[in-house]
Amino acid sequence: MGVVSRNWIYAKKFVGEPTNENFRLTEEELPPLQDGEFLAQAEYLSVDPYMRPYMSRFPEGSLMIGGQIAKVVESKNVAYPVGAKIFGQFGWRTHTVYNPKKAENEQKPYVLPDLGSLPSSLGLGVLGMPGNTAYFGLLELCTPKEGETVVVSGAAGAVGSIVGQIAKLKGCRVIGIAGSDDKCQWLKKLDFDHAINYKTENVLEELKKAAPKGIDCYFDNVGGSITESVMRLMNLYGRISVCGTISNYSTGPIKVQDPQTDFVFKQLKMEGFIVTRWQDRWMEGIRANLDWIKEGKLQYEETVTNGFESMPKAFMGMLKGGNTGKAIVKVE
Amino acid sequence: MGVVSRNWIYAKKFVGEPTNENFRLTEEELPPLQDGEFLAQAEYLSVDPYMRPYMSRFPEGSLMIGGQIAKVVESKNVAYPVGAKIFGQFGWRTHTVYNPKKAENEQKPYVLPDLGSLPSSLGLGVLGMPGNTAYFGLLELCTPKEGETVVVSGAAGAVGSIVGQIAKLKGCRVIGIAGSDDKCQWLKKLDFDHAINYKTENVLEELKKAAPKGIDCYFDNVGGSITESVMRLMNLYGRISVCGTISNYSTGPIKVQDPQTDFVFKQLKMEGFIVTRWQDRWMEGIRANLDWIKEGKLQYEETVTNGFESMPKAFMGMLKGGNTGKAIVKVE
Repeated sequence: MGVVSRNWIYAKKFVGEPTNENFRLTEEELPPLQDGEFLAQAEYLSVDPYMRPYMSRFPEGSLMIGGQIAKVVESKNVAYPVGAKIFGQFGWRTHTVYNPKKAENEQKPYVLPDLGSLPSSLGLGVLGMPGNTAYFGLLELCTPKEGETVVVSGAAGAVGSIVGQIAKLKGCRVIGIAGSDDKCQWLKKLDFDHAINYKTENVLEELKKAAPKGIDCYFDNVGGSITESVMRLMNLYGRISVCGTISNYSTGPIKVQDPQTDFVFKQLKMEGFIVTRWQDRWMEGIRANLDWIKEGKLQYEETVTNGFESMPKAFMGMLKGGNTGKAIVKVE
Repeated sequence: MGVVSRNWIYAKKFVGEPTNENFRLTEEELPPLQDGEFLAQAEYLSVDPYMRPYMSRFPEGSLMIGGQIAKVVESKNVAYPVGAKIFGQFGWRTHTVYNPKKAENEQKPYVLPDLGSLPSSLGLGVLGMPGNTAYFGLLELCTPKEGETVVVSGAAGAVGSIVGQIAKLKGCRVIGIAGSDDKCQWLKKLDFDHAINYKTENVLEELKKAAPKGIDCYFDNVGGSITESVMRLMNLYGRISVCGTISNYSTGPIKVQDPQTDFVFKQLKMEGFIVTRWQDRWMEGIRANLDWIKEGKLQYEETVTNGFESMPKAFMGMLKGGNTGKAIVKVE
């Protein structure tokens, strides 16, 4: 009898906020390895905002998508030796038989770089997709310059917290927008110049105070009314990097003031992106963030949920903003 | 007694659509020329959409802003000799005493290039600001590639009609959106692949038919609900050049669906611009359009209103879409 993987299935189409009914836990007996394949056992799994809108494109009955840090426990592929810690876009499953050659449209699994004494779970956060999202999305699309003012929404999340710190490293004034006083206090500890609690404060008025010279760069994780407020204070030739729109993943798009007028007079530039466009520079981003961590210049936080059976709970909690830093699940 | 200029004054703040009450015709006796100055007599004046939002920033009593083609009739400046035909951002006035050295924040007046047998009025349209707006705004920000689908709104206007033709010259499929059947017929004559009358047709449905492969580039002159429809059909890595938002100049911004979600998944890029950012390449744009005209590859139309006293009428008519091609006023 082969290895049995536990898998979380997209049981029912998302309507509004996800609930337990959207997920179903199943078991799957895996086949013996063929040449070129390896067997990976999940140690940490990622729950990320993008999963909400992406899954909507899949039929019911699909495996939930997502990345994981796994250990290779059996291998017929020399590039993935037994014992290696790897990142793989395997989905919500405890065990995976995988042939990298057959994965054409996905991100190929890769062996984690040497993280020294750092936990391998960082490969799902600051040293993985979210860290690279922050690194490339900020530096390549916002191109922040010393002395400029940078605003980041979803600032206490896996991506936003890194964005703000990198902007500080580049000599910018940084304002974070987050959803609780605890998160705002944490942002201050991360050396953010100002933090706004959008649930209790007037975002536009607070931004006016915190950004007296206007806003040059905006890294947007949320969309909606927060973005509408930020847009009103953008400076001439401002740059907006649109990473996510978590505010509407479960509600559908809201109506906002047509942004085009400001776009013309302020000559703004706005660009949406998915981080895999920098696939060929992936390790550059990870190395840069790793170096900053080793130098004590980049802090990270993880919100860990224990147990594979808790994947839906961790996912739903993250969508509601329950996490500070990266939300992950430890398999145990 | 000196030369007397007739001037149109911004008499009363715009509220909604401009009316005759917003304007006042005055006379001004001009002083004798000082060293470095010249006296210019207007031949053609421009009425452009941008004047509506720009004037809102000026106090009542200001001269109406705008460009004109004028003849130098007296000069104490060798760069502007008597008889020269020049473009100047002099405002709505028949006569101007001007010292280019004292004009720091404005576009400097320049002697028109040799237009051969073409009318000098083109210096206000296809061979001036609108032509350059089309040339640079399309080629630099939308970067259309052969075989791509380009949509232009305000397509029968001074800028839009040139945008569409340049896109055709670059080998694109071009769809124009305009406000009358006559305009749409004219666009077909200009070799547009498809023209949509937004006043009588369902823009989204017609776009779906006309752009079966989706939209790669959008040159936006109007904003609002037309833009909302176009955005829904943009392709991955689509580029949007935001030139103007005439749909809301008199009404104020409307609410539209928050565009951010599409921005991320389609990795769109949107940039607003004012053509003077290419000030140092100004003559490049004029020469390119002039060459295409001489080669018979670029058509233009002018909607001419006669008489300086008709400036407000021409302006109000243009804002309502009464013009095809460039709206100008002939002084006599």
